[in-house]
Amino acid sequence: MIDADGVHRVSVDEHLGLSTEVLTGLGAPDRAAREQAGMLLEGDLRGHASHGIRRLPVLAGRIGNGVLDPAAEPELRWTTDSVLTVDGRTGLGPPVAHRAVEALVERVPRTGVAVAAIRRAGHLGMLAPYVERLAEAGLAGLATTTSEALVHPWGAAPAMLGTNPIAAAIPTGGQPVVLDMATGQISRGKVLDHAARGEPLPEGAAVDAEGAPTTDATAALDGAITPVGGPKGYALSLVLELLVASLTGTALGREVRGTLDTTDPVTKGDLLIAFAPGLFGVGRTQPAIAAFLDELRTLPPAPGHTRVQVPGDRAHDVRARNRFRGVPVDETTWAQVQGLRRR
Amino acid sequence: MIDADGVHRVSVDEHLGLSTEVLTGLGAPDRAAREQAGMLLEGDLRGHASHGIRRLPVLAGRIGNGVLDPAAEPELRWTTDSVLTVDGRTGLGPPVAHRAVEALVERVPRTGVAVAAIRRAGHLGMLAPYVERLAEAGLAGLATTTSEALVHPWGAAPAMLGTNPIAAAIPTGGQPVVLDMATGQISRGKVLDHAARGEPLPEGAAVDAEGAPTTDATAALDGAITPVGGPKGYALSLVLELLVASLTGTALGREVRGTLDTTDPVTKGDLLIAFAPGLFGVGRTQPAIAAFLDELRTLPPAPGHTRVQVPGDRAHDVRARNRFRGVPVDETTWAQVQGLRRR
Repeated sequence: MIDADGVHRVSVDEHLGLSTEVLTGLGAPDRAAREQAGMLLEGDLRGHASHGIRRLPVLAGRIGNGVLDPAAEPELRWTTDSVLTVDGRTGLGPPVAHRAVEALVERVPRTGVAVAAIRRAGHLGMLAPYVERLAEAGLAGLATTTSEALVHPWGAAPAMLGTNPIAAAIPTGGQPVVLDMATGQISRGKVLDHAARGEPLPEGAAVDAEGAPTTDATAALDGAITPVGGPKGYALSLVLELLVASLTGTALGREVRGTLDTTDPVTKGDLLIAFAPGLFGVGRTQPAIAAFLDELRTLPPAPGHTRVQVPGDRAHDVRARNRFRGVPVDETTWAQVQGLRRR
Repeated sequence: MIDADGVHRVSVDEHLGLSTEVLTGLGAPDRAAREQAGMLLEGDLRGHASHGIRRLPVLAGRIGNGVLDPAAEPELRWTTDSVLTVDGRTGLGPPVAHRAVEALVERVPRTGVAVAAIRRAGHLGMLAPYVERLAEAGLAGLATTTSEALVHPWGAAPAMLGTNPIAAAIPTGGQPVVLDMATGQISRGKVLDHAARGEPLPEGAAVDAEGAPTTDATAALDGAITPVGGPKGYALSLVLELLVASLTGTALGREVRGTLDTTDPVTKGDLLIAFAPGLFGVGRTQPAIAAFLDELRTLPPAPGHTRVQVPGDRAHDVRARNRFRGVPVDETTWAQVQGLRRR
C-alpha cells in the first residue's frame, strides 16, 4: 500500500510473515526465524531501513553460500560467575543475542554486573532492542559491536574502523532512556542511497579516496565515512573496537567480515554488559531520573530547535507511528524479498 | 624558570613538593597528600592545566570551609563479588579512586569483571591515570564521572549536563591505548582563559544565554558549552550521567556539586569498570591489537594532517617531554599556590 505521502507500507503481520516464511524456507527453526524476523521488523519500524528487511537477501545469500547456518544452536558458557562467553556457531545473530540477554537477566540480579562476549553470531540488527530488554528487567545495559571497516581514522584516508555503534539503556520506572548511536557520521546505506540519487552528502560526513572531505556520494563510496565528532569519535570508535576484540577474540579493522557480504565467515564480535542498580546499595534512583528527564523535555527550545529530546524518544515515537500507519519498506525491496520465497 | 618559548616551568620535584607541603599543612595524611599531589602533577604534565596545580586553591578552600575532609578514610564494601561500593566520606578524590583501583586489580583476575561505584569523593583529576593503572595490571578499564552542569542539552540553552568524561584503557602488551575525552566541546577553563584574553572560541563550541551559537567567550560564560558531535554527544553525555547516578546514587544535572566550588558538599559520582580479557576464553589478543595499532600509526596522512595518532599517544609524548623540560605552570598560579603554604 502506498500512503498519502507516497511511502510504500506493509502491515506488521505481512512484514513478519514474509520474513519468517523466507527464513523458515531457508532452514531456520521456527523460533530463530521469528527472532530474526522480529529484528528486521524493528529496523524498519524505527526508520532504519539498512537494518530492516533489506538485509534478508544478504542473509539468504550467506545461508546459500554455507557461511551462515540458520539452524545453529549457540553455545553459552559462564567462564566466571559474571562472564558469559557465547559462541554463535555462525548462526543468525538475533537468536544468539536474545539467549545472551536472557542469561544476563537471570544472572545479574544476583551478581550486580555481568558481561556477555559473543563471537561467531550473525548481524544482530539494531542494538537498541537488546538493551531495552535489559532495561525492562530493571537492569542498566550497554552494548557494542564491531563491523566492517567503513570509517577512516582521524588523519588518514582509508577505511580502517567499523561504524562501531554503542547502545545503552537506563531504567527510569517508565519508558527507558535508550541510546543507540554509530560512531560514524552516516551509514554506508545512506552513502549508497545518495550516490544512487545523485544527491550530495552533508558536509563533513565522508572523505574521498585521497582522504579529502567530500560531499560527492560517489566519491565517498571509494573513500570512507568520517567519524562522529572528529578525533574524539575516532578515538571512541577505536577503543570500542579494541574492547570488543579483547574480550571476544574477534577481528580488527579490515579483517572484520560477515555482516555486509554473502561469502565470508563472520569475524566480528559483540558485547553486552548489564548492571543491577539495586545491588549497588544506593536506594531507588529512578524517580530522580524520571524528574530530571522531564525537566529536560520541558526546557524552552533554543533558536532553530522545536524541542529537547531524551535519547530513545524519537525512536519510540517513530516506532509507534509506523506500527499504526504501516511499516515503511520501499517497493523494490519488498518485491525482491518476495522473490526469496520458496517456490 | 622561564624557558626559551616563554613558558614558566618547574621541576617535577618542586611541583610535587609544593603540593604535598600545602596538603599536609591542611591536614592531609602523608599518603593522601602524595596521591593528590601526584594527580595534580599528572594534569600539568599532560598539558591539562585545569586539572593541575591550579586546583589546589579550590581544594584548600573546600578544606577550609569544612566540605572536604583531607584526613577521611574511604569505606570500601563489596556488595556482591563484582560490585564494589565506595563511600569517599568527603575526602580527597585520588586516594579514594586509587583504593578502588587496587581493589579491582586484586579482584578482577578472579571474577573477570567488576565495577567500583564511588560517591562522596573529591575531584579525581584526570581519569586516564586510573585506567592506565588497570591496563598495567592487564585489565581493560573504563571510567566515567559526573561533574557540574556546564553543557547544554541539544536543542536548549541552559547548562544541564556535566562535561562528563569517559576514559578507557586497553592493554596491548606495550603502551596501552588510552582514551580520556570529555563529552563537551571545550572545558570551562578554556572558556575562562579565552574570555580573559578577549580571544574568540572555535565555532560550534558554545552557546550564549539564549542558546544561540557564539564564538564570544564572554557571552559563552553566561551560556553553556556545546556537546561534542551535536545530538550524539548530548545523548552519550546524558546516558553516562544517568548510568553514574543509577549506580552511585549521586546527583543529576544542576544538583551536581563539589568540584569547582569551595562551599558545597560533593554530590557527583564516579564509576570504574574493569575486565580481565584472560578470563573470556579467547586466547591472547594483544599481539593482534599491537599490530593493528602500528598499521594505524603508519598510514600515510591525509591532506592537512601530519600523522595518525592512537588515543593516548599524544598525552604520552607531551608527558615525557614535560618531565624532561619541566612542568608547565603559569607564574600567577605558581605564586598563588606558594601563598597556600603554612607560614
